[in-house]
Amino acid sequence: MQQHEQAEDFLEDFATMSGFGATPGGGVERQAGSAADHETRAWFAGWLERAGFEVRHDAVSNQFGLLELVPGAPYVLVGSHLDSQPLAGRFDGAYGVLAAAHAAREVARRVREGSLQPACNLAVVNWFNEEGSRFTPSMMGSSVLTGKLPLETALAATDRAGVTVAQAIAEPGDALDLTPPPVAAYAEIHIEQGRGLEESGTTIGLVDRTWAASKYRIVVHGEQSHTGSTVMADRRDALYGAALVIVAARELTDELPEGMLHSSVSELELAPNSPVTVARLVEINLDLRSPDEAVLERANALLEERLAAIEERARVTIERRLTHQWGLLAYQPEGVELARSAAAALGLTHAPTMTVAGHDSTNMKDVAPTVMLFVPSIEGISHNEGERTSDEDSVAGVALLTEVTARLVAGELGSAAAFTPGG
Amino acid sequence: MQQHEQAEDFLEDFATMSGFGATPGGGVERQAGSAADHETRAWFAGWLERAGFEVRHDAVSNQFGLLELVPGAPYVLVGSHLDSQPLAGRFDGAYGVLAAAHAAREVARRVREGSLQPACNLAVVNWFNEEGSRFTPSMMGSSVLTGKLPLETALAATDRAGVTVAQAIAEPGDALDLTPPPVAAYAEIHIEQGRGLEESGTTIGLVDRTWAASKYRIVVHGEQSHTGSTVMADRRDALYGAALVIVAARELTDELPEGMLHSSVSELELAPNSPVTVARLVEINLDLRSPDEAVLERANALLEERLAAIEERARVTIERRLTHQWGLLAYQPEGVELARSAAAALGLTHAPTMTVAGHDSTNMKDVAPTVMLFVPSIEGISHNEGERTSDEDSVAGVALLTEVTARLVAGELGSAAAFTPGG
Repeated sequence: MQQHEQAEDFLEDFATMSGFGATPGGGVERQAGSAADHETRAWFAGWLERAGFEVRHDAVSNQFGLLELVPGAPYVLVGSHLDSQPLAGRFDGAYGVLAAAHAAREVARRVREGSLQPACNLAVVNWFNEEGSRFTPSMMGSSVLTGKLPLETALAATDRAGVTVAQAIAEPGDALDLTPPPVAAYAEIHIEQGRGLEESGTTIGLVDRTWAASKYRIVVHGEQSHTGSTVMADRRDALYGAALVIVAARELTDELPEGMLHSSVSELELAPNSPVTVARLVEINLDLRSPDEAVLERANALLEERLAAIEERARVTIERRLTHQWGLLAYQPEGVELARSAAAALGLTHAPTMTVAGHDSTNMKDVAPTVMLFVPSIEGISHNEGERTSDEDSVAGVALLTEVTARLVAGELGSAAAFTPGG
Repeated sequence: MQQHEQAEDFLEDFATMSGFGATPGGGVERQAGSAADHETRAWFAGWLERAGFEVRHDAVSNQFGLLELVPGAPYVLVGSHLDSQPLAGRFDGAYGVLAAAHAAREVARRVREGSLQPACNLAVVNWFNEEGSRFTPSMMGSSVLTGKLPLETALAATDRAGVTVAQAIAEPGDALDLTPPPVAAYAEIHIEQGRGLEESGTTIGLVDRTWAASKYRIVVHGEQSHTGSTVMADRRDALYGAALVIVAARELTDELPEGMLHSSVSELELAPNSPVTVARLVEINLDLRSPDEAVLERANALLEERLAAIEERARVTIERRLTHQWGLLAYQPEGVELARSAAAALGLTHAPTMTVAGHDSTNMKDVAPTVMLFVPSIEGISHNEGERTSDEDSVAGVALLTEVTARLVAGELGSAAAFTPGG
């Protein structure tokens, strides 16, 4: 297939795929294990089968399209995730899965026609529940495969309606018996979800590091009372306390050098959530992220000071639990170099970049040589129906992922099993 | 029955009644139409029947214990509400309903023995859903009876699980065919839910006015984006905007003379409520209350300034809808005078007082002569399992309500129909 044919074919498939769970605002909503997620997976399974892949999924519903090229050899995995946030864009995750499928089909063609000598087998992967919006934690499928999250914990996770992952992923007639194969290397392409590439006029981001992050669960304990008759000085209002925490988290970003700290609170549950009763309890998440570990450390220290002051001011107690903490995590330099070399060979502008968001590649890089690529996001918009990437950048990314996958299948980062799932 | 026998009997019944929906913390949870509410109502119906009242309820589940003393005459209604907030105290509402039942039984006895000449009939009433925690709006039953809320609107109100009032109140075997009788006068006793009586060492509050209030529904519109990768300057975070509103509402109370403004936000819903997506939409309530209309007006003006500033600061738009607005509302002076005279006759300390909270009497006073009484709340605690009133004050309130009811039945505030429900 010529490159422009691959490009046209990719854009057509992407438009078709974007119809599953389509929203009026031009985005998609396909939360993990929802009907729209199942529909997208079923369509994708058909695509893979028509392209000659054997479609299977493992016990946590990671979906694989397997292609044996070298009997007994380990696999190059290439993929991303088809699940989305609520009212999300078409690109986040889904772009990378379809790009992986098109790249893998082209690599298989080159092997068949004899222009590429394989050292590894090849599998496309659609990771289950990368987003974590319906079921916690995010990056669930890749966390289970890499042994970071027990399968039982993942299957028992519930959504707000009490539905478990085990219930949500049940696909009648499907066998859940695949043990994923040994992995030689992993590659993923994703939209940037930021403005860096667009502003610098660069087509390809070569992801070399992850921002440092600290993630908290915070519970504010107050005391129920009457919203009307209780005098202000007597109140222990958990929602007022939580509001002060949300404002403080945001204002930390103004106290540190511009652009060096991202903070957010995006989840909140309160009790009793009644019109005339002061809240006794509020639970929120709170994330701090920085491209500089020293800045993050300073932000954590400032946050601790703020929380102590808020406890006094709102007469509440604040329970804080650091649930995730990581420093700047590096992707393997040889993977970054392979990607750089491939981009150069295709004449694509490229630059090293960091990822702020977590990806399934964040898990995979800890167990196998990994290549992580970005294409530009228009205006940096993401987790929003207005998320876009130009056709030109989309197909440039597919071409690059094809080149990277070919090199990985040829064994450029090694052809031994770096990691054996469940092993 | 001697007064000390009535007192002992009341305290025993109150302890029994407090067992329905009892919580581990010593309170009750009997939200409107819940199993615990139905159980309490069933027990109360039995009590009324044993005391010789005819038990009926109307189409919105207001429960009546009717006693005909003067064929064809209008009724004196006396009561309060048995429903509660989540994790609430035993007294709020329930105290007044049981006090009304004991008062009415004693008045009936006096009529039977010939020591009281009735001019009106007598009914105990348990208003449906005064609290409004499960179904909006609060004071639902008295609002329907007084024609302020269409019955159909009330029956169609849903809780967070989508259950309607019509579904929640269905009591198999009960006829919903009572049209409430014409009303000559209304009396209610309630705990103060504040510290005023306790601090001044007064047993009885003679409620003469309601605080002025402005109640808002506020919707903050932001824009979904990625909590990690979106640069801070690009965010339109609806939860950050809402947090600024919650803090601003609280801080208004510091800018105005001490004790002259109560403010609260106690309800919050956000979308999408996901760990990695900035909130696009947050909806909250916001109440301002003051014993001075000029202060409330100033607070509303300051709030408007704050909301405009928050729209700029958080890059959100804030939709505000004033849902309720009232000035200082007076109870009829002749009702206050009747209560004062009755308290004096019993030798109970008493003082005029305002109510900050709304009560079913707030609705009833608009259609019929109404007497509203308070007994002290220990430490002003309310809407909390720790809500308490001393036995001494409890029984003093029952004695006073008995005296007030006797005077109303004798026609001291008139014996004509002031209001005919549905008329």
